[in-house]
Amino acid sequence: MKTKDRIVQASRELFNDFGVHAITTNHIAAHLGISPGNLYYHFRNKEDIIRSIYANYVDQMNASFIVDHNEMMTLSQIAAYAEQVIINQWEYRFFYSGITDILQRDDSIKERYLDVILLQLEKGRAIIEALRAASLIEIEDGDIGEVAELLRLTESFNVAYMQCKSSEEPGISAAYNTVVKLLMILKPYATAQSKPDFSALIETYRHKTDAKVTQTA
Amino acid sequence: MKTKDRIVQASRELFNDFGVHAITTNHIAAHLGISPGNLYYHFRNKEDIIRSIYANYVDQMNASFIVDHNEMMTLSQIAAYAEQVIINQWEYRFFYSGITDILQRDDSIKERYLDVILLQLEKGRAIIEALRAASLIEIEDGDIGEVAELLRLTESFNVAYMQCKSSEEPGISAAYNTVVKLLMILKPYATAQSKPDFSALIETYRHKTDAKVTQTA
Repeated sequence: MKTKDRIVQASRELFNDFGVHAITTNHIAAHLGISPGNLYYHFRNKEDIIRSIYANYVDQMNASFIVDHNEMMTLSQIAAYAEQVIINQWEYRFFYSGITDILQRDDSIKERYLDVILLQLEKGRAIIEALRAASLIEIEDGDIGEVAELLRLTESFNVAYMQCKSSEEPGISAAYNTVVKLLMILKPYATAQSKPDFSALIETYRHKTDAKVTQTA
Repeated sequence: MKTKDRIVQASRELFNDFGVHAITTNHIAAHLGISPGNLYYHFRNKEDIIRSIYANYVDQMNASFIVDHNEMMTLSQIAAYAEQVIINQWEYRFFYSGITDILQRDDSIKERYLDVILLQLEKGRAIIEALRAASLIEIEDGDIGEVAELLRLTESFNVAYMQCKSSEEPGISAAYNTVVKLLMILKPYATAQSKPDFSALIETYRHKTDAKVTQTA
């Protein structure tokens, strides 16, 4: 792996484990066994590294799952998509833990973030409409926007919430808990036929939450 | 007002407006026109000030509204309670914007926070049960805990979410939006009779969100 890529990957892991504020460029260089000068050859400062990490994250988000309006969706497909988004996000969790501060400091990240959030809200609405088209949920048009907002809020901040409310680091089970919460937001809109499927799927992810999963990344 | 109280109040306001990381004890002293030495006479460091602010917040939270199981609740009472909690929280919004970092740095705040979150989840459950007892919602026992979690997550992080997704500082309208979201979480459980009341109340708070309210504190 190129030094530049190694710096990006190591920084992401250190930020995730210790928080952005606790980690300096010197920590990152020492962790990789390179000189600070070598790090500064690739990145001007910590903000510059964060910008690179964020660009990777946005690329991964944009590549993820696009709702095909011509194809019928199943509940398992939706859950698999949610899991994919959430697990991807887990590898960038430092971003959401310190998001207000990161966006306040860096206008270029804020600008990209605003684009991403609009796109994600749009995807959320498309998923809700696809669930309705497949007769899996019943929901009034006027409520779709608000439910998409609730999904997005939960997707963004549940891992931080779970970290804050646990006396020990919850690990990746916090990410699986996010899938439980997303399904719980949709479940009250389930049709009589689909309600048991929602409940079963929620149980599946609740089980993953309970399991002691080894933390990766 | 005593100097100690003035320091606490000014710090809270500066943290809210500029973030905890951007504000040093020197900024706080300069803002109040006192010497850094005078500030250090009252507080050892910034963490010490944050601890004092947090103690005030917890006292206010604990004093807020207790569900009386012997009395029938109305939807307006619930909304008024939510509004009270959210507006109180607005004055301490820096805490939730930087919560992961604040809790990681200070074990004594983390410990108090864990107590508060359990109490707040308990209050959330009591409110859901009271709404059910008053036949305003229908909900299975097994879902009450998860819905209480969703309420708590939204209550804690929606202001940060609204700040992140706006290109301008949303001001206190972000707090009113939190009330909209809390009601939206409960609305799908509404009974046929109470559903119009939920919708009307949501409209009321949506209107407050739209209104250009001058930001205080």
